[in-house]
Amino acid sequence: MSQGRLLYAQSGGVTAVINTTAAAVIATARARKVPVLAAKNGIIGALREELIDTTKESAAAIKAMRWTPGGAFGSCRYKLKSIEQNRAQYERLIDVFKAHDIRWFLYNGGNDSADTALKISQIGRELGYAVNVIGVPKTVDNDLAVTDCCPGFGSVAKYTAVSVQEASLDVESMAASSTKVFIIEVMGRHAGWIAAAGGLAARNAGDPPHVILFPEIAFDEAAFLARVKATVDKVGYCTVVASEGLKNAAGEFLAEAGTRDAFGHAQLGGVAPVLANLVKQKLGYKYHWALPDYLQRSARHIASKTDADQAWAVGKAAVEYALAGKNAVMPVIVRTSDSPYRWKIEPAPLDKVANHEKKLPKSFITRDGYGITAAARRYLEPLIRGEDPPKYLKDGLPDYVRMKKALVRKRLVAYSVGD
Amino acid sequence: MSQGRLLYAQSGGVTAVINTTAAAVIATARARKVPVLAAKNGIIGALREELIDTTKESAAAIKAMRWTPGGAFGSCRYKLKSIEQNRAQYERLIDVFKAHDIRWFLYNGGNDSADTALKISQIGRELGYAVNVIGVPKTVDNDLAVTDCCPGFGSVAKYTAVSVQEASLDVESMAASSTKVFIIEVMGRHAGWIAAAGGLAARNAGDPPHVILFPEIAFDEAAFLARVKATVDKVGYCTVVASEGLKNAAGEFLAEAGTRDAFGHAQLGGVAPVLANLVKQKLGYKYHWALPDYLQRSARHIASKTDADQAWAVGKAAVEYALAGKNAVMPVIVRTSDSPYRWKIEPAPLDKVANHEKKLPKSFITRDGYGITAAARRYLEPLIRGEDPPKYLKDGLPDYVRMKKALVRKRLVAYSVGD
Repeated sequence: MSQGRLLYAQSGGVTAVINTTAAAVIATARARKVPVLAAKNGIIGALREELIDTTKESAAAIKAMRWTPGGAFGSCRYKLKSIEQNRAQYERLIDVFKAHDIRWFLYNGGNDSADTALKISQIGRELGYAVNVIGVPKTVDNDLAVTDCCPGFGSVAKYTAVSVQEASLDVESMAASSTKVFIIEVMGRHAGWIAAAGGLAARNAGDPPHVILFPEIAFDEAAFLARVKATVDKVGYCTVVASEGLKNAAGEFLAEAGTRDAFGHAQLGGVAPVLANLVKQKLGYKYHWALPDYLQRSARHIASKTDADQAWAVGKAAVEYALAGKNAVMPVIVRTSDSPYRWKIEPAPLDKVANHEKKLPKSFITRDGYGITAAARRYLEPLIRGEDPPKYLKDGLPDYVRMKKALVRKRLVAYSVGD
Repeated sequence: MSQGRLLYAQSGGVTAVINTTAAAVIATARARKVPVLAAKNGIIGALREELIDTTKESAAAIKAMRWTPGGAFGSCRYKLKSIEQNRAQYERLIDVFKAHDIRWFLYNGGNDSADTALKISQIGRELGYAVNVIGVPKTVDNDLAVTDCCPGFGSVAKYTAVSVQEASLDVESMAASSTKVFIIEVMGRHAGWIAAAGGLAARNAGDPPHVILFPEIAFDEAAFLARVKATVDKVGYCTVVASEGLKNAAGEFLAEAGTRDAFGHAQLGGVAPVLANLVKQKLGYKYHWALPDYLQRSARHIASKTDADQAWAVGKAAVEYALAGKNAVMPVIVRTSDSPYRWKIEPAPLDKVANHEKKLPKSFITRDGYGITAAARRYLEPLIRGEDPPKYLKDGLPDYVRMKKALVRKRLVAYSVGD
């Protein structure tokens, strides 16, 4: 008699530590002698019956996977429709589970994925196939409900804070005769969690960043320019952290309202150049701007140890919950103390997590709208503590690994995922 | 009788390891009981008689300075005119040297600084004030003549290679359903050294980056698009490293030829968005692009150990040369062996270094114009070897330091530097 297999799938935008979670899942299951399959490119692979046999991956590869960024088995941006709209898709998943004796399904993602995981657990029951479905938290956006923070966020937070510190030291040393304003654009289309993390770079009052532009606060051009000017007058330069989701008073994204390419198309993904041009036109300062984009969420080399530890812990707990018969839950991070910082993992019902969004509290933004409060610092600072560097090889590059991704033999007819 | 003082000044764009050189200068001089002054904001501070007394800086601060990015005493973009054009400026410098008993002047910069250092040494002799002037190499651009490589370059090279590796792993895992083309724009307006270093990310044939766009090769739109498409067809995604100095066949910078801001002004500093829009318009692929800007040259947290060691060695040698009575020389890095990589420091006459530019050899670029050759790899790879992380504090941030910068009392009348 088969003992059953565990299926693991990654979902949505990847993080610097999602593979740390994947490594924990595989290591924990291996220790319990449970074979793990991984969906190739996330839920799309599960639908297509493209299942990676992780038992073919060496122990060394699993070890190196722990510190490798990206999604080791592939991820996807693909949201299942509701059961009413596309029941066949859910039934297909259950068929695949049945065909491969999948008794446990771990879905590693954000809000949408928690919702999908919940639905899969329901339809399995309905169709008489008991599969234990566990959501596993992951997102650089830090917007999952219930959990105190999301694995992936601490590392992008650390990358951002360190980068702001470093670039500011550079600008500070050049400002007397050259660049006076430096703008760094960070991710966070809907919430200012990452922008807020940039504020951690300031250890002391007056330290950069001097201005944080949150998506939660409508952009006020005159006030922004006055603030930049006052800062340059006072300290000689000004560092600005701008969220990509910054909007004007009319609710339009600044990144889209500003620049046009040679064809007249709105240029996407650039609030920083819009602000830089504004500073140049209205204040005449020399500027530089940076847009790290994917670099910020894949920078495993500067991962937070706290984040990596939590990414591992949720992966381990997910397997333990699944094998213990839990269903439709997610291991979440519970903060038990700020100082000293203490946390533990607990199961939370998926329906409490699914489709909710954790907003940046108003109490985290200073009254002037340009900085973070002591409360924000108390929450954020423990999340970037500690380092967890990858192993480096002799050639000066990290020992990042690509998995073999050997697929198990298909047993069902082909299935078209469509668009 | 006074024993004389040593003046150290930083010049031009700073690097991740210019302070490592500064720390070596101070540590070496302290061991020889020679007091070190540092010009505040580079040569401008020397002209203004704004001289920092480094004997007031604690040993702990000097130690932390070694791993702090930016220019600890300030730098500037300010080129002295020729002696014929502005002799008074050179005479002022000599007046400042005399007033503060400065017998040794160390100028830490690139091509222009080597030229300035040379002129100062000449005019000192002419005016009957013997000051030993030593140029100290520094530049992320790696374009100094004579020296095998430039302190500062190895670290930006390592940052670039690691970032390309990390972001590519991210894109690779998303490409099946999302982003297919990732473009990273790197520094190097006149030479493709940093772009070439991005090529180190590829350990094996077929690894990203798949396309490198060098300033040395005129951009061919059709060929570029064909290459991107062929890469996506073959491996599912495509990573592009683009030099900010990329030009079209007419010799115009692509970054300036492309986008306009809302006011119709050419938007500066963005060849990546121009390429991204091109990929979108002509190939229809979803793209992401990154522009790390100052982040790449200030990323001390991912500095190359080779680079940091060389930055230290040139600082130490510069003091030793100066105190030994050498004049108008620069300690340069001589590579004595590729494998194993071996190097030593030797003095080179400043007139051999000044105003020359080391170009990226044609033999470093593959025949198709999009990659680096084995010869390039042989040259570049040792420069990114080893890690030299800063110390981190409990709060998760590096122990970067700001110096006290206590100025010595002025002895001369005020001097206006002008523009």
